[in-house]
Amino acid sequence: MGKLLLDTINSPADIKSLSVRQLESLAEEIREYLIQILAKTGGHLGPNLGVVELTLAMHYVFDTPSDKFVFDVSHQTYVHKLLTGRRQQLSTMRQPGGLNGFMLRTESEHDCYGAGHAGTALSAALGMAVARDLVGGRNHVLAVAGDAAFTNGISFEALNNIAQRTKRMIVVLNDNEWSIDRNVGAIASYLHKIVTNEHYSNLHDTATRLVERLGGKAARHVVRKAEEAAKGMLWPSMLFEEFGLTYYGPVDGHNIGLLIETFQFLKSQDRPVLLHAITQKGRGFQPALEKQKKFHGLGPYDPHTGETKPAAQKTYSEIFAETLVKLADKNPKLVAITAAMPNGTGLDLFRPHHPQKYFDVGIAEEHGVIFAAGLATMGFKPFCAIYSTFLQRAFDPVMHDVCLQNLPVVFCMDRAGLSGDDGPTHHGLFDIGYLRGLPNIIQMAPKDEDELADMLYTAMLHPGPSAIRYPRGAGPGVKIKSYPVPLPIGRAEVVSDGDEIAVFGLGTLFPMARELALRLQGDGYSTALINARFIKPLDRDLLAGYAERVSAIVTFEDHVLMAGFGSAVLEALSEMRLETPVVRIGWPDRFIEHGKVDALRAKYGVSVEAALEKLAPYLERLPRKRLLAR
Amino acid sequence: MGKLLLDTINSPADIKSLSVRQLESLAEEIREYLIQILAKTGGHLGPNLGVVELTLAMHYVFDTPSDKFVFDVSHQTYVHKLLTGRRQQLSTMRQPGGLNGFMLRTESEHDCYGAGHAGTALSAALGMAVARDLVGGRNHVLAVAGDAAFTNGISFEALNNIAQRTKRMIVVLNDNEWSIDRNVGAIASYLHKIVTNEHYSNLHDTATRLVERLGGKAARHVVRKAEEAAKGMLWPSMLFEEFGLTYYGPVDGHNIGLLIETFQFLKSQDRPVLLHAITQKGRGFQPALEKQKKFHGLGPYDPHTGETKPAAQKTYSEIFAETLVKLADKNPKLVAITAAMPNGTGLDLFRPHHPQKYFDVGIAEEHGVIFAAGLATMGFKPFCAIYSTFLQRAFDPVMHDVCLQNLPVVFCMDRAGLSGDDGPTHHGLFDIGYLRGLPNIIQMAPKDEDELADMLYTAMLHPGPSAIRYPRGAGPGVKIKSYPVPLPIGRAEVVSDGDEIAVFGLGTLFPMARELALRLQGDGYSTALINARFIKPLDRDLLAGYAERVSAIVTFEDHVLMAGFGSAVLEALSEMRLETPVVRIGWPDRFIEHGKVDALRAKYGVSVEAALEKLAPYLERLPRKRLLAR
Repeated sequence: MGKLLLDTINSPADIKSLSVRQLESLAEEIREYLIQILAKTGGHLGPNLGVVELTLAMHYVFDTPSDKFVFDVSHQTYVHKLLTGRRQQLSTMRQPGGLNGFMLRTESEHDCYGAGHAGTALSAALGMAVARDLVGGRNHVLAVAGDAAFTNGISFEALNNIAQRTKRMIVVLNDNEWSIDRNVGAIASYLHKIVTNEHYSNLHDTATRLVERLGGKAARHVVRKAEEAAKGMLWPSMLFEEFGLTYYGPVDGHNIGLLIETFQFLKSQDRPVLLHAITQKGRGFQPALEKQKKFHGLGPYDPHTGETKPAAQKTYSEIFAETLVKLADKNPKLVAITAAMPNGTGLDLFRPHHPQKYFDVGIAEEHGVIFAAGLATMGFKPFCAIYSTFLQRAFDPVMHDVCLQNLPVVFCMDRAGLSGDDGPTHHGLFDIGYLRGLPNIIQMAPKDEDELADMLYTAMLHPGPSAIRYPRGAGPGVKIKSYPVPLPIGRAEVVSDGDEIAVFGLGTLFPMARELALRLQGDGYSTALINARFIKPLDRDLLAGYAERVSAIVTFEDHVLMAGFGSAVLEALSEMRLETPVVRIGWPDRFIEHGKVDALRAKYGVSVEAALEKLAPYLERLPRKRLLAR
Repeated sequence: MGKLLLDTINSPADIKSLSVRQLESLAEEIREYLIQILAKTGGHLGPNLGVVELTLAMHYVFDTPSDKFVFDVSHQTYVHKLLTGRRQQLSTMRQPGGLNGFMLRTESEHDCYGAGHAGTALSAALGMAVARDLVGGRNHVLAVAGDAAFTNGISFEALNNIAQRTKRMIVVLNDNEWSIDRNVGAIASYLHKIVTNEHYSNLHDTATRLVERLGGKAARHVVRKAEEAAKGMLWPSMLFEEFGLTYYGPVDGHNIGLLIETFQFLKSQDRPVLLHAITQKGRGFQPALEKQKKFHGLGPYDPHTGETKPAAQKTYSEIFAETLVKLADKNPKLVAITAAMPNGTGLDLFRPHHPQKYFDVGIAEEHGVIFAAGLATMGFKPFCAIYSTFLQRAFDPVMHDVCLQNLPVVFCMDRAGLSGDDGPTHHGLFDIGYLRGLPNIIQMAPKDEDELADMLYTAMLHPGPSAIRYPRGAGPGVKIKSYPVPLPIGRAEVVSDGDEIAVFGLGTLFPMARELALRLQGDGYSTALINARFIKPLDRDLLAGYAERVSAIVTFEDHVLMAGFGSAVLEALSEMRLETPVVRIGWPDRFIEHGKVDALRAKYGVSVEAALEKLAPYLERLPRKRLLAR
């Protein structure tokens, strides 16, 4: 293979002297490198294979960190990371202590803006452009957003503001017709029409051929002429131009020479522009082209075949979907809603069974929740399957449309708790706190998969709003009953009784609570183990009963301690004038980095050991015989 | 004046037999009635004067409650309420126990969907239309949204979904070029261009004249032809048609005959349609036409002149704006952002002093916060002035963009606490709970106006995110220092010392805390009074000091008790292993209706009396001498 160009790239400066042909070779080397490295670490392979040339062209024409690249969602920034001094760390991607899978301001001066939720790039970039204008700067600001970002309302709020606020900003629409699943809605059809328009096809071929033949300054002139002609001929520009952005494109997002010429032209423009680049997600890796969804983001795979190891056992998401199918088989009013996450939430398994009752609204969590509220006013029972971290987007509709009107919408919050490799943008550590202040809603968390099924059934029967939080991945692997049973609202489950210490385990951390209880029982302490089940309404009677008997209460929750489940326990005890001490185990008041769940739990004191340490002063108060028994 | 038509209208059926001329007379009667009644009660006069004919035409053509009217924001539904059996209660509008100022499902079967935040109507209506389609219903669903709603992203998320989900839904764009202030952004310019297009003007005049001359079925044919011609001639349809909605308009929103004909035509359509109706906010009342902002929503006024009583003293909003001007005079990096609320937040007072540093982003709270984050990455210090209840919209950007990246954005949450007349959609009772779980942010609440100024200065100097919550209306009226001073972060203020009871007052409720302290002191209890100032970081040292000395701690907060300030106190005490009992005073776990603040406080136990009652058991534990001293 000879010496690789890739080995010489340590900063963006290293690509600026390369020829277009060399850049093309480098693109191929980068692709191969990504395929090999991510085979071991896992990651967002497909999106990154799609933006190799685009990222190279951007770094060729612009100069970070003084020029600003704002990537929407930013899972497509591996190439950017590779080009900005992090080539050798790329193999640590998403590994503990390694590179974060998203842009991170603390990781590099070239990462000017972090993201993990879609739709923020245009707004953030506009803030930077306005800041630059206010100080009379000349640097460039680029927002790179996928077509999926335009199913999200924030992108439109930004579009509504750009033209009146700045004359210099470049929006790159990276159009691959996919978000994680294939995109939905009017915008997707609109973009598809542009791309398949035959006028464009001819024009684009002509422009490309001319650029290839002429090169240099002459080519720039030609590109401009071709683009102006395109603008005159085609209607695609209309939507964006109504918002005051001058539209250019569509251009082939894998033609480095054309992209470089185009960016050089765009950087001279004194008006906000939108470049519509067509890219191919998974380009250069046949398995990724064939299985777009799978290769959006995945774990380790075979770098030749793309094969991954089959999952050992069913995930919570799968149990969720299977249960929903069972319930919908009997309940004609059950409908299911996802915000562009049919695969992640498991709803792609629901869809074939009840296609008329399945709704993918796009990356539009707010609309999704209000749409559900509308359905609920007409007697339907909507289940909104939205990750805990993404439901933050719809907090106001949850309050203003669902809880305030007491409508029977069910929020199924997958990825609640620490989500691991994806890091702080994806951890679901705040939902108990932001939801439990809202009247009318009930909040549950299952200790295992079978209880998730029971909670879904309970929520279906409940006439008001409800929320169920459950974690990423597989549960303990318990057997699922053939049909779920309803749980009594607001009642916890006593797993084992005791009268010296009471341990409440909520959801994901119930096994940790059980381990503590076993340890304490082994040490001779009479210990009760309770599966909390409900955060709201809290089982106050049961809590009071234990509080009056035991010397201390322990709570476990996969959530920040502030405003969490343990906090609800403290409030209830205080209101009942019970002064039993409470040891709360959960996440501290800081953002948690990416990493392995077990290691992060140990690091941050979400552990049996931490509980024992905090419990020690209360154990000491217990009768002497117990201490001797240890 | 003779017998009024109005007196005969007790249900929508009563208008169906009226002629267009009678409807026009009724419209005038309704206008006069609104002007007279709202002069006493206050309310959203301007918006309601603008939709009299529109609402009459809708109720003439459609049949609620089987047909569904979803009004965006729904402060423009007084005419709807009047026509649907609530005419005689209209004088109780926004009064305690009277009609709510917004749509309320619990108030009438004709109020199919409540709202108080903008941008939700299209999503909710789509949910209803899809529900109807699923059961094979034939009823009609109309969403009525102002042009301002299209500055909000949710409307676009909905637009992206409508055409693929239903064939029958009517969107009425009630275009008056105003939200509360004049609209901003590309959409506003776009709509303005449509309205001022001369092709349209001619066409519209022609259509109107023809309809007037011909009437009846012939007119319907003409209207249709004219509209089709309009569609062919004009570009305005493009934006909405790209989203798959067939565009009709613009039509004169005060021409009842034309509106009736148009709705009769639209109700027969088998595709989603958008009717662009031009209305005049404040129509029929000269003072409201001249002062659009003032008459959007206001208190009592003179029904002849429109004069209102001058405010007795400055509001928190005004102090906020004046302080921000002072700070910006010295700090060139200070910028201020409002989401379509320059008047409500006071920022219209800031604008003339620092026009380049003032940004109204439209009803786009999410974009506004991310835009601020972008500015902050470039060294600016953005102050986002957003009501507590509206910041709920931006909860995810507050977490994902600001707190996670630890950017120095300041959230100035006006209308925090009970907002009174507007009711549950506008009370700001959840912000402590939804914010305090987020790492990095500091949270403050001032006891008076001067302390608000100090907190703004403190926030300006703080290198991370911060939030300040302050109430609607005027404060205690204290003198403002000539220039604010910074407060030590995380330190409470001891107002008076004591060692039996410690009373912590947060923000708005500090005066109530003081009253309790005085009562207790009068009863002979040694009582400390503390101005909490910081919710986060909490002054744990001070808290610990008192917890070790006193028999009970009392907390006052204008917020729900769940996950609130008192809850933070309980958490801190628990973590410090201090078992001092805490009496928490705040709002219970239910939505609070509209009404007078004092009455609602008394009703729901946000009072000194409630505190004394809850405190009684702890007072009894105190040394006998104290009880004797009473």
